[in-house]
Amino acid sequence: MKSIQIGIIGFGTVGSGTTQILMDNKEIIEKKIATPISIKTICVKNLEKKRTTKIGSSTLTNKTEDILQDPEIDIVVEVMGGIDKSKEIIEAAFKKGKHVVSANKDLIALYGKELTELARKNKCHFFYEAAVAGGIPILRSLQFSLTGNNIQKIGGIINGSTNYILTRMQVEKLSLETIIEDAKSLGYLETDPSADLDGLDAARKCAILASIGFNSLVTSNQVYTSGIKNLSLEDIEYAEALGYRIKLLAVAENTEDGIVARVHPALIPIEHPLASVQYEFNAVYVIGDMVGETMFYGKGAGSLPTGSAVVNDIISISKNIIDDSKAEYAYNLFDDKEIIAIERQYFQYYVRLKVEANKNSVSNIIRTLEYYNIPIYSINQWHKEEDENKYDEYIIITNKSRELDFSRALEEIEALPNIIDKASAIRIERGL
Amino acid sequence: MKSIQIGIIGFGTVGSGTTQILMDNKEIIEKKIATPISIKTICVKNLEKKRTTKIGSSTLTNKTEDILQDPEIDIVVEVMGGIDKSKEIIEAAFKKGKHVVSANKDLIALYGKELTELARKNKCHFFYEAAVAGGIPILRSLQFSLTGNNIQKIGGIINGSTNYILTRMQVEKLSLETIIEDAKSLGYLETDPSADLDGLDAARKCAILASIGFNSLVTSNQVYTSGIKNLSLEDIEYAEALGYRIKLLAVAENTEDGIVARVHPALIPIEHPLASVQYEFNAVYVIGDMVGETMFYGKGAGSLPTGSAVVNDIISISKNIIDDSKAEYAYNLFDDKEIIAIERQYFQYYVRLKVEANKNSVSNIIRTLEYYNIPIYSINQWHKEEDENKYDEYIIITNKSRELDFSRALEEIEALPNIIDKASAIRIERGL
Repeated sequence: MKSIQIGIIGFGTVGSGTTQILMDNKEIIEKKIATPISIKTICVKNLEKKRTTKIGSSTLTNKTEDILQDPEIDIVVEVMGGIDKSKEIIEAAFKKGKHVVSANKDLIALYGKELTELARKNKCHFFYEAAVAGGIPILRSLQFSLTGNNIQKIGGIINGSTNYILTRMQVEKLSLETIIEDAKSLGYLETDPSADLDGLDAARKCAILASIGFNSLVTSNQVYTSGIKNLSLEDIEYAEALGYRIKLLAVAENTEDGIVARVHPALIPIEHPLASVQYEFNAVYVIGDMVGETMFYGKGAGSLPTGSAVVNDIISISKNIIDDSKAEYAYNLFDDKEIIAIERQYFQYYVRLKVEANKNSVSNIIRTLEYYNIPIYSINQWHKEEDENKYDEYIIITNKSRELDFSRALEEIEALPNIIDKASAIRIERGL
Repeated sequence: MKSIQIGIIGFGTVGSGTTQILMDNKEIIEKKIATPISIKTICVKNLEKKRTTKIGSSTLTNKTEDILQDPEIDIVVEVMGGIDKSKEIIEAAFKKGKHVVSANKDLIALYGKELTELARKNKCHFFYEAAVAGGIPILRSLQFSLTGNNIQKIGGIINGSTNYILTRMQVEKLSLETIIEDAKSLGYLETDPSADLDGLDAARKCAILASIGFNSLVTSNQVYTSGIKNLSLEDIEYAEALGYRIKLLAVAENTEDGIVARVHPALIPIEHPLASVQYEFNAVYVIGDMVGETMFYGKGAGSLPTGSAVVNDIISISKNIIDDSKAEYAYNLFDDKEIIAIERQYFQYYVRLKVEANKNSVSNIIRTLEYYNIPIYSINQWHKEEDENKYDEYIIITNKSRELDFSRALEEIEALPNIIDKASAIRIERGL
């Protein structure tokens, strides 16, 4: 009877979670696939490091070649991260006829198409569920579960770190900087969290989701990306007072004119299910022309949730090996759609303006909005006194307007004489 | 090149949705599977009936044999409902080596195991995603997407009709009877809605979910089932005042001692994502030992959402036919766990009691609860005057107590001299 041998490259958060699941749930996994499955080799950076997972020292190596050149290893699990070296490893694995599971979103967002072609050429299976939204089986759902649909929209909360930060700001009423420092000290945030805070991590995942969901290539640099660095506690509090929560959203839309892909903070009505997605949880909406709205929710990060996605890919490939099934690829790019610039999109906006008090000059603001055809949905005013500063804060909610018009209007409004500081402007997403 | 020929038996809501999707999205579906796919025959009850779907009359028949005996038909889609006749049809299809897609929850809940055995014997594929939670790909996720996990709990809102009723009661502040009558007249509810209202429909789906998720057979009669017929608007309003919403929940738990499966109304904290699942939407939580909490949300009913699930099964089988892949079955029952009676379970309870005013006899109630070891979490009192009746309404929230003890306590409390009417008692589900 065939047994499945696995080689794991990388033994950080995801690698150790994967190993733990394969060990702890070995019995149920082997029952499900009716075949023995075992980890033959794990490639680590430092052989001397003490580890909590109980792995025999004969399993460990620090040479990737011990996995890539081992004819007994069926599946290579790439969980080391990074781009160049991991790309080389995956390519070498395919060339040796080995199947690959990866959790590497940076790599897939850049080279998903290229690597898929190589996998196809070598008749190798290639899955990377853990690359997007951790434990949520969203790539598999797009590839295998909603196939009768033209997928029209995919979007949601796909960066756990920023969602954790925004949730704590909202719940604890603390500033972005305070939460970031605290999250770093708790190990919830990397030392350099720019990829998360600037929205780059979400943009990479958004590109992967759009490519798979729309069967048309979207690369991360085609995703409009704006992070959470400029978000203030004030905005979160005003949003709440008006019935919204602020989330970092990734949204990809498949329209007749082309594809829109964007990552930016957005106000979401408090009663919308996405508003309840808190802390490290992720949630992805998929809207199909036939099924309507669907949503997939779960932990977007962490050793075991992400390991759960990796192990599912391993099991799926194992079954394919046993049954000698033909490989099928998530990047099935039979379409070639144009990418639509954000400037051509229409949004509702939340705008917070600090205006010198007692100047009665709101009319200038309104006039500018009117000039650019920005319809106003509501205006709320709060009078503020800080030390000797007195000013009014205006929260304007617009109706749907074209991004290009709105950005021009905002620029002019910010230049008005009675406006203090830069305005704070955030898009509103009512339904997804 | 092989083409896939489909025979559809039943042309009601699901059958016409399936047909529409296969016709409208023919192009994208054929691109995805790189194979032509077409509906060869549709078996209808009445050939004379006018239909909105544009189907050539040569496609229609009223004899199931025209599908079952046709050697060109690869996949039989059973969407006629009912038990005996549809079981016969599926059995005949398997015996002819035809693959089957069904949307029939009543049938699967009763004969899922038996039909799977016949499918296995005849090497036929057999999927029935549409049987549970309409358009949500929940069965596929349990079978293919969370395989590295021991599934510990599955639960949620899986009956769209009752969720629609409860949502309208809560939003419009109208009685159960009023909403039921209105829903019937709008065609949202069947003429005899007992299977929905009594929780039987949810119990069948719960049995299917548990069987697939836990790899151990659970039948619908093993599911503790309590419907929504006794729910009053008062309870919904009191629940809301205390920060809860009432939903009809289905919950299956996989513990070391055995399996618990239950369907009953429950109070859910308003901030829990399930509380936001409104109207005809369904949501299913799946909790795995490794992935933690995941949730799948979408439309639980309707022609196109349900058709979307059927079509996905058709596409999945088509790919398997093209690749000559081995069949894999959702009912993979390698475990044989005991079912635990509800009486041995622990719950928090919401209890509403009408007590004659000015009697100061709350202490009797408390004493009874204390006697049965029911710890009290909170008591709230509202004084009511209706015409000449004056009474106090007490809402008691208990801490976790054993169902058996609670039911005994409640019986005694209801027999106390100053209690008016029967008490209203509803379980509370905080996390899922």
